[in-house]
Amino acid sequence: MAELNLGKGLTAGKVASNVQKKLTRAQEKVLQKLGKADETKDAAFEEWVINFNKQYAEGSKLQRDLRAYLEAVRAMHESSKNLQACLGDMYEPEWYGKNEVDSILEDCDVLWTDYHQKLVDHALISMDTYLGQFPDIKARIAKRDRKLVDYDSARHNYAATHKTKKKDGGIKITKPSTLLERATPGWAQGILSAHNLAQTSLSKSQAEEELERAQKVFEEINLDLQEELPSLWNSRVGFYVSTFQSLAGFEEKFHKEISRLDQDLHDVLETLENTETT
Amino acid sequence: MAELNLGKGLTAGKVASNVQKKLTRAQEKVLQKLGKADETKDAAFEEWVINFNKQYAEGSKLQRDLRAYLEAVRAMHESSKNLQACLGDMYEPEWYGKNEVDSILEDCDVLWTDYHQKLVDHALISMDTYLGQFPDIKARIAKRDRKLVDYDSARHNYAATHKTKKKDGGIKITKPSTLLERATPGWAQGILSAHNLAQTSLSKSQAEEELERAQKVFEEINLDLQEELPSLWNSRVGFYVSTFQSLAGFEEKFHKEISRLDQDLHDVLETLENTETT
Repeated sequence: MAELNLGKGLTAGKVASNVQKKLTRAQEKVLQKLGKADETKDAAFEEWVINFNKQYAEGSKLQRDLRAYLEAVRAMHESSKNLQACLGDMYEPEWYGKNEVDSILEDCDVLWTDYHQKLVDHALISMDTYLGQFPDIKARIAKRDRKLVDYDSARHNYAATHKTKKKDGGIKITKPSTLLERATPGWAQGILSAHNLAQTSLSKSQAEEELERAQKVFEEINLDLQEELPSLWNSRVGFYVSTFQSLAGFEEKFHKEISRLDQDLHDVLETLENTETT
Repeated sequence: MAELNLGKGLTAGKVASNVQKKLTRAQEKVLQKLGKADETKDAAFEEWVINFNKQYAEGSKLQRDLRAYLEAVRAMHESSKNLQACLGDMYEPEWYGKNEVDSILEDCDVLWTDYHQKLVDHALISMDTYLGQFPDIKARIAKRDRKLVDYDSARHNYAATHKTKKKDGGIKITKPSTLLERATPGWAQGILSAHNLAQTSLSKSQAEEELERAQKVFEEINLDLQEELPSLWNSRVGFYVSTFQSLAGFEEKFHKEISRLDQDLHDVLETLENTETT
């Protein structure tokens, strides 16, 4: 029998499974919050997540400030060029050093353009690459959270099945599904009822299988993040160092060369003044 | 008999005299434009006025561009400070060189503030003083133009009186006053009629007196401007030189010192990187 197709590759079965996943998680979280179910905690991992969020926020702020700085460099280049163009326009062709002055102004313009370009090519692009890692890891931290709830839920299911089986030798478990039903949208009530019927007949071995599967899924993603988060956190020192070192390096070179041109301009103007007054 | 007071110290007599002056000038300009009256020309002076206008326009543009540059310096200081604050915030207290880094960032801030202040105190204020001379001279050039028209008008009046007296031995001149009357506002028509009556009885010696007075007034203001305009024009070289020399000087010092701080920052970060990787 062909399954009802709901578009975008979704089938009624998949929708039911997604709805069930969300409701099971919501139910598990409510039970955990009410203190009716224990929650798996990993203080060390939570610490890494705090660090990750701090690092992401710091990096994003740095990116914003770097972009604003680049904008300011562009604006100062523009206004410095306009100011120097006044000198170029006023400087009459027969005055001493006209060619030198024109060439100094041109060199200044080139230095500003180079400085801006270097900042874009190095600091900004490496900044974008560094920050590009964060959204994926953030999504995986959220997925790990969901998989942890699934694992806890499977753990509690298993424990309940185990207990019930022990107590009355095979009587079907009745899940505390009131909350779940209340939270289900109208259109999914039918799907949910069918699913609940299936759930109530969950055997001990099915619950065990589900627990094993949930644990495996969780541990896989957890292990990856346990490796990646500390390594990302430690990479920040090298990244800040290399970013600010290259900023300082480009700035130093730029300021040194602009300073040299200023000295040249100063000298040409001094000679012009002496020529005019003698 | 008390004269009618029209407020703001104006009396009916003064108003009549001002209206008459304006109308006489308008009439003289029309006659000159129609080629009915010769106009005193001073090509050398006109050249000075062209130079004056060029110099004023250049100076005003320089002032605008200098203000825009100062605004850009302020904006770049701000964004550079924000960017460096990122480094300060990220730099953990236990990392090598925390104090040096904080002190470099503080010194950078001081350098930017000093640079901006020096530009305001020196370049901008001397710019304002230089440009402050122009409006007064511009007003005096306009006054000279009016006094030249008065002089030409008195000259033609005198010539007409002289010719008429010669021809018919004492017949009153009839001024070509149609234009004058047409241009006079209604309320001043009475004043003008009375004045015209007086004018028609202008004696040869009165016309001569008026010519001498108009010539004296014109020559006085003309002489002053003939001295001041070339001297103002020549002062531009020294002014541009001193303005751009001080700009270049402050810039050179600023860039040199910022460059030194960048070098220091680069070195501290290098040591931090080596400490971290060993």
